Amino acid sequence: MTAFDIAVLTTGDELLSGELTDTNTGTIAEILSRHGYRLRCSLSVPDQEKEISAALTYLVGHVQFIIVTGGLGSTGDDLTARAAARALGQAQVINEEALEMIRQWFVGRNRPMEPSNERQALLPQWAKPLANRYGTAPGFRIQHQGCELFFLPGVPSEMKAMFEQAVLPILQQKIPEVAPLQQRNYKLFGLPEPRIESMIPYRQLPQGVDVAFALDYPLVVLKLKATGHDAGELLDQAEALVMKELGEHIIARDGESPEANVAKLLTHAGLTISLAESCTGGLLASVLTRQPGASAFLERAAVTYADSAKQDWLKVPAELIAQHGAVSENCARAMASGLRHTTGTDLTLAITGIAGPDGGTIEKPVGTVFIALASPSGIHVKRYNFSGDREKVQRMSTYMALEWLRRYALRQLESRHK
Amino acid sequence: MTAFDIAVLTTGDELLSGELTDTNTGTIAEILSRHGYRLRCSLSVPDQEKEISAALTYLVGHVQFIIVTGGLGSTGDDLTARAAARALGQAQVINEEALEMIRQWFVGRNRPMEPSNERQALLPQWAKPLANRYGTAPGFRIQHQGCELFFLPGVPSEMKAMFEQAVLPILQQKIPEVAPLQQRNYKLFGLPEPRIESMIPYRQLPQGVDVAFALDYPLVVLKLKATGHDAGELLDQAEALVMKELGEHIIARDGESPEANVAKLLTHAGLTISLAESCTGGLLASVLTRQPGASAFLERAAVTYADSAKQDWLKVPAELIAQHGAVSENCARAMASGLRHTTGTDLTLAITGIAGPDGGTIEKPVGTVFIALASPSGIHVKRYNFSGDREKVQRMSTYMALEWLRRYALRQLESRHK
Repeated sequence: MTAFDIAVLTTGDELLSGELTDTNTGTIAEILSRHGYRLRCSLSVPDQEKEISAALTYLVGHVQFIIVTGGLGSTGDDLTARAAARALGQAQVINEEALEMIRQWFVGRNRPMEPSNERQALLPQWAKPLANRYGTAPGFRIQHQGCELFFLPGVPSEMKAMFEQAVLPILQQKIPEVAPLQQRNYKLFGLPEPRIESMIPYRQLPQGVDVAFALDYPLVVLKLKATGHDAGELLDQAEALVMKELGEHIIARDGESPEANVAKLLTHAGLTISLAESCTGGLLASVLTRQPGASAFLERAAVTYADSAKQDWLKVPAELIAQHGAVSENCARAMASGLRHTTGTDLTLAITGIAGPDGGTIEKPVGTVFIALASPSGIHVKRYNFSGDREKVQRMSTYMALEWLRRYALRQLESRHK
Repeated sequence: MTAFDIAVLTTGDELLSGELTDTNTGTIAEILSRHGYRLRCSLSVPDQEKEISAALTYLVGHVQFIIVTGGLGSTGDDLTARAAARALGQAQVINEEALEMIRQWFVGRNRPMEPSNERQALLPQWAKPLANRYGTAPGFRIQHQGCELFFLPGVPSEMKAMFEQAVLPILQQKIPEVAPLQQRNYKLFGLPEPRIESMIPYRQLPQGVDVAFALDYPLVVLKLKATGHDAGELLDQAEALVMKELGEHIIARDGESPEANVAKLLTHAGLTISLAESCTGGLLASVLTRQPGASAFLERAAVTYADSAKQDWLKVPAELIAQHGAVSENCARAMASGLRHTTGTDLTLAITGIAGPDGGTIEKPVGTVFIALASPSGIHVKRYNFSGDREKVQRMSTYMALEWLRRYALRQLESRHK
């Protein structure tokens, strides 16, 4: 146990039955880490007095600050206050201050107070209530054997507001200021995690910089972390070293998505594009058009499932499809060149492939995908063999297409700066 | 402690820094509850050997089954196996069986194995490896002091597959069969939650059936639950009552997505469609083509951002756009009719609107969307005013379009049965 350990205890049957995903822990963790604090652990238990009480007993012995969420409502399965009283050996009594808060909440809204709301003022004897502006349930705070416990409602919006307004300031008073952790994330595409790790110049990285990885299929997220007052400088140094080795594979950074980055680069480069999608069925167009201002670069996209659509809109000759098939290098090339001829955009990207589950052959198994890019410098086509189910093949094809666009736009921007 | 307590321990710095929300606990909880089991508690700790080890020591004393996820990767911050060895007082050794699994994984993919992958075979001495078909990291299983521990990778898809294939069957052998909770989910579109609640015939519902709600924007999920040996019968009765009131608003059921349901109905009805999307930018095409066999009903889709694309592919007259604007009832109608004329599909659906953030006017604010459906019985157009940001407007438009297609296909199927 270090000096300032913080734990979160969430309560609720739904959290352990799979009906609801706990977001409160993540919210608290995120706010804490913005202020330089770290959660030591989080725990979830059902709405049972015995379980809540056991968890509290365990945590009181292990950490210094405990944030409990849930079970403060007015219904029968709201048992947190009773469990806390039991775990901490206190009586449960009507807290007059809390009762007044509840009354005022109803007065302020001109609504009658139900008798069941009075239950919400039944708190452990030595609890101090915490005001809740957004709901009827006051929170409360208890000091016990050198441990500080905060009890907040489970409704995410109420919990968050109370945590920020009532709990965080107390933590900041009690825990000496820490230099917040700084972190930079780099999203890499096209290299497996072990390969990326082997390319990181660990020995040259400045001391105090931590490296971590996360997977966000099909991306690998590389994280550089540092604490302290020179964290920014250390990260700058580390970043420069990492960029030298891996820079070209970084498809996006921090909170940005690959498609947002590509949209930004296309816009900066002033490039216009048109798309011809077969096996991705509009996924590439849809991730790009999710970006505000997509009309600056995207002229149009064709989802050409039927061969007739490839003929009409992309001017792919029927004979070409008959001879080589719709999933072929020739067809991809013809799709890109045909559409570019119609639209006159700077770039035209075409994707044709077999996403599965059906349609694979020995020569062209499921996952066979051709990508073609037509640009002023000609047409480039490549065959890929992606693995996984339909959704994975569609996703990989889309990310690969984004990567082609990203690299093209980057080259354009770089050549202009020369 | 009851006889069959199950706990989940998730590991990962990201879970306690707010970077990542833990979904593994929810997945396991949901699968368990489908089989009548309940989680007793869940715990999250950072990627630190000491913390993982302390959590394991605590859990071993409290529950009978422990499922651990995360920290089995090949990089330096993957410390679960070492922590387990320490907590359980076992040496950490290369497990030959696990090593062979890793080798085979690479052989099967014709890819070279990195030396760091060997680390993934370093398991506690008495661990039995569990095969992982979807990644390099084998899981493992250890029996210790009457407690059974399962270690699975943290990647959600790998974790889920291994839990279902390797862990669940063991739990089912060891834990006497229980009458599982039965649950049916109905996804409703187009009605707010309080309205849905007011339409439920609570008084007529058979005793023992519970009703619950969840939000999955823009859908409301209505849940009916019952336990015991007559659960199926009770739910049948309740379902019949609910269907009478709400049946027409149910866009999908249980695990099915609205788009999967629409794809199924279009296929059953033998209807072919073509799409013209402007503000949704291919989102409708992409959710439909995510479904296997989409080529049975989808002929093609046009993402016509530029007016020139609306003219070329959809035969929308330039004058019409000049007079009424691209976001107008007339344009939506012309898009649908023009494309249907070209493709000859049974249905053509067109969407044009202002998704934002820019482009809104007083007459046509952001969220103004026109949907048109051309069918053998004519063209139907409607204006909507959706609220929310770009992503919400795109999503609402897409769901609304799906709802149009669903209702059309249903009417077709019903009229044939008459």
